[in-house]
Amino acid sequence: MTESVLDYMTRLGQAARQASRVLAQASTAQKNRALQAAATALDAARSELTAANELDLAAGRAGGLEPALLDRLALTPARIDGMIEGLRQVANLADPVGAIRDMSYRPSGIQVGKMRVPLGVIGIIYESRPNVTIDAASLCLKSGNATILRGGSEAIHSNRAIAACIQQGLAEAGLPAACVQVVETTDRAAVGALISMPEFVDVIVPRGGKGLIERISKDARVPVIKHLDGICHVYVDAQADLAKASDIAFNAKTYRYGICGAMETLLVDQAVAAAFLPAMAERFRAKGVELRGCARTCALIEAVPATAEDWDTEYLAAILSIRVVDGLEQAIEHINQHGSHHTDAIVTEHQGHARRFIAEVDSASVMLNTPTCFADGFEYGLGAEIGISTDKLHARGPVGLEGLTCEKYVVIGDGQLRGQNG
Amino acid sequence: MTESVLDYMTRLGQAARQASRVLAQASTAQKNRALQAAATALDAARSELTAANELDLAAGRAGGLEPALLDRLALTPARIDGMIEGLRQVANLADPVGAIRDMSYRPSGIQVGKMRVPLGVIGIIYESRPNVTIDAASLCLKSGNATILRGGSEAIHSNRAIAACIQQGLAEAGLPAACVQVVETTDRAAVGALISMPEFVDVIVPRGGKGLIERISKDARVPVIKHLDGICHVYVDAQADLAKASDIAFNAKTYRYGICGAMETLLVDQAVAAAFLPAMAERFRAKGVELRGCARTCALIEAVPATAEDWDTEYLAAILSIRVVDGLEQAIEHINQHGSHHTDAIVTEHQGHARRFIAEVDSASVMLNTPTCFADGFEYGLGAEIGISTDKLHARGPVGLEGLTCEKYVVIGDGQLRGQNG
Repeated sequence: MTESVLDYMTRLGQAARQASRVLAQASTAQKNRALQAAATALDAARSELTAANELDLAAGRAGGLEPALLDRLALTPARIDGMIEGLRQVANLADPVGAIRDMSYRPSGIQVGKMRVPLGVIGIIYESRPNVTIDAASLCLKSGNATILRGGSEAIHSNRAIAACIQQGLAEAGLPAACVQVVETTDRAAVGALISMPEFVDVIVPRGGKGLIERISKDARVPVIKHLDGICHVYVDAQADLAKASDIAFNAKTYRYGICGAMETLLVDQAVAAAFLPAMAERFRAKGVELRGCARTCALIEAVPATAEDWDTEYLAAILSIRVVDGLEQAIEHINQHGSHHTDAIVTEHQGHARRFIAEVDSASVMLNTPTCFADGFEYGLGAEIGISTDKLHARGPVGLEGLTCEKYVVIGDGQLRGQNG
Repeated sequence: MTESVLDYMTRLGQAARQASRVLAQASTAQKNRALQAAATALDAARSELTAANELDLAAGRAGGLEPALLDRLALTPARIDGMIEGLRQVANLADPVGAIRDMSYRPSGIQVGKMRVPLGVIGIIYESRPNVTIDAASLCLKSGNATILRGGSEAIHSNRAIAACIQQGLAEAGLPAACVQVVETTDRAAVGALISMPEFVDVIVPRGGKGLIERISKDARVPVIKHLDGICHVYVDAQADLAKASDIAFNAKTYRYGICGAMETLLVDQAVAAAFLPAMAERFRAKGVELRGCARTCALIEAVPATAEDWDTEYLAAILSIRVVDGLEQAIEHINQHGSHHTDAIVTEHQGHARRFIAEVDSASVMLNTPTCFADGFEYGLGAEIGISTDKLHARGPVGLEGLTCEKYVVIGDGQLRGQNG
C-alpha cells in the first residue's frame, strides 16, 4: 500500500467518524430534506450524469469490458428515474433511530430499556453499478450512518457525478459533506485501507459477487455483513396440494433466474414423485429449464443425471437439480447439509410437517407454501434492502434500515445505588 | 499445529454441529431437566470435585502459580454452592427459543415474521476459573446451543469433573453428550483450531482479560463476541443534585474496584466543581482511593496531576482520574473520545441535558442518575450474563440468553406467487 492512499483513506475515515456524530443526532426531517434535495439535484443533473457515464462507458468499451458489465455500468434514463424514485422512497420510510423499547423498572428501582442508534460509519464496497451509489448512500443516511462508498473503478466518473448531487442534498439540509464520501482514487489499496480501520469504520457491506465478498471477509479487520450464495430449495411434501406445488416451484425457479432467492434444487417426497414430477418437468422444459436429477428422478422423467456437485451449486441460470427424497426428515437433512442457509420452502397442507420444517431448517428465511423468490426486503416490508445477510450474527436475511442500526441500553435512576437496595 | 490436535478438534466440532441440530429442537422442559439433573449431580459429587480441584491446586502451587490465580482456581464449598444455584436459576429463566414476533400480512398476501432460534455451536475460551464451565454451559444449553468449552489448562482436572456432572444431566434428559464438550487436551493448538472452524463453530465467546480477547479476535475466522475494557465515566452536570451526585460517584467507584462497570474517570462541570469536589475528594480519600486530576481539579483539591494516559486507562483499582470540563458538550466529547463505549452516566436534574447525554454518548449503556456499576446482566433483568459486549454488531452491553440466539424470517403463504399479485 502506498503511503498516500493510506493517508487519503485515513483522512476520509476521520472525517466520516466526525460527521457520523452529527448525523446520528440529525432529526428525521433534516435527513429527509437531504434525501429529497438529492433527488431534485439528480433530476436537474440528468445531462451531466449521462455525460459522465458516457466517459465510463467509452473507457469500458475501449478496455474491452464484457457486454454484461457494460450494461450494468450504463446510466439509462430509466435507471436515473429509479435512483430518484429510490431516494424519495427512502425519505418516506419510518426512521428507526431513537426508538426506545422495553423500558421497565427493575427490583433495584432503576429503569432499563433499549434505544435504537446508528452503527456509526459504514463502508460499502461494490462493483461497477452506479445506481448502487444512491441505494447505499440513501439507506445509510436515513439510518443516521456516515458512509464511505468504494464503487468499481470503471464507474468512477458516474459515481463522482452522483456524489455531487448527494453533496447538494446534504448542503441544503445543513449536514456535513463527509456524511457521504465517495472514494476518489481507483487504486485498489483503498479497499485494503477501508477494511482495516476499525477506529473509523464500524461495518463493511460488500455488494457484489461471491468472490468479492469472500475476499473482503477474509482480509477485513472491521466486521462484515456478508451476502454469500443462495442455494435455495423447495420441498414438495407428501401432503402437498400438487397444483399449488407446481405453481410455487415454477415461480420459485422462473420468476428470475439470477436472483439469490431463485430455487436451485427441487426436493420431492417419493410418495408423490410419480404423480408430481412428469407434469412439472414438462412445464420447466417448455420454459427452457435444463433438468438434472437423482437416480429416482431420472427413472420418472427425462433429466441429466445429477452429480454430487449439483447439490452444492448456485446456478443462477435456467438449470434445476431435482432429488426425490424419502420424506420430510431427509428433505430437512439435505437442505441443512447442501443449502446455503439462505431461503428454503416447504409445500404442504400438513400442519405437523410445516411446523417441523419451519423449526428445523436452519436458514435465514424459512417458508411455507411460498416460492423462495419472495426473499426480498421490499416483499418483507423493510421498504428497501442493502443486501441479504447469510450471517447469523447481527442481521440475518434481508437487511433494511434496522440492520444498519444497533441498540444501546438506557438506564434511568434517581440516585439508586448498587448493593444497597436489597 | 500438530495433526492430532487438529483432528481431535475437528471431531469435537463435527459432533457439536450434529448435537446442535438435536438441541435446537429440544423442548424447554427437556433442557430444564438436563440443567436440574446436572445441579443434582454436582451436589452429589462434592468430594470428587474437591479431589479433582486439589490436583489442579497442587500442580498450580508446584508450578508457582500466583496467589490471585490460585484463588480463582479454587473450588470452595461456597463456589460449588454457587454453581448449583446458577444451574437452577438458569433452569428458571424464560426460554427465548421459538418465539415468533411481528408476524404480519404483506400486500402480496404472504405473512412475514421472525422466529428466535439458537446460533448453533458456541465456543467458549476462558481462563482457569472452573465455575465458568457451569456458567457458560448452562446459558448455552438453555439457549439451545451446543458448546465447546476450552478452559485454562491449570483447571483441567476440575473442568473434567464438572463436565462429568453435566454429562449426567444431559444423559438423564436424553440429550446427546456432545451438547456440551470440554476440550480434554491442554495443547494450545486447540484454541487455534477452535477459532478457525466456521463450518462447525458459529461464534466464539472469550471470557478473560483484555489480552486474551484481543489475541483471539485478531486470529479468529469465526465471529467473536468481544468484551474489552470498561473505561466508564460519571459526569456531574451543572444542574446535578450534588448530594445525589456524591453518592452515585462514590458507589460507581467503590462498589467494586475490579468490575468493568466501575467508574474510572469523574467529569465535573466547572460551574459546580468548587462546590462539589472538596467534599467528594474527602470521601474518596477516606476510603483510600488515589485521586489524579487535571489542572483545574488540582487547583481545588489535593490530587496527583493526571497525565494524558490517565484518561485512557482502565485502572480496575482504587485509583480515580478527575477532570473539570466546560460543560455538557465537552463531557460528551471526552467520553466519546477517551471512553471504551462501555457504560457512562450523567448526574443531572436538567431534562434537556439528560436527553442530549443519552442520545449523544456512544456507549453500550448510557445512564442517568445511576452509578455505572449497575452495568450487569442480573441488574438489567437478563437473569444471567455470559459477558458484556463492547461490540456494536449483534449484541451490545450485557449478553444474556437472547444474545446467544438470532432470528430467522418465517414466511407463510397459501400459494401466493411473486410478480402476480399486483
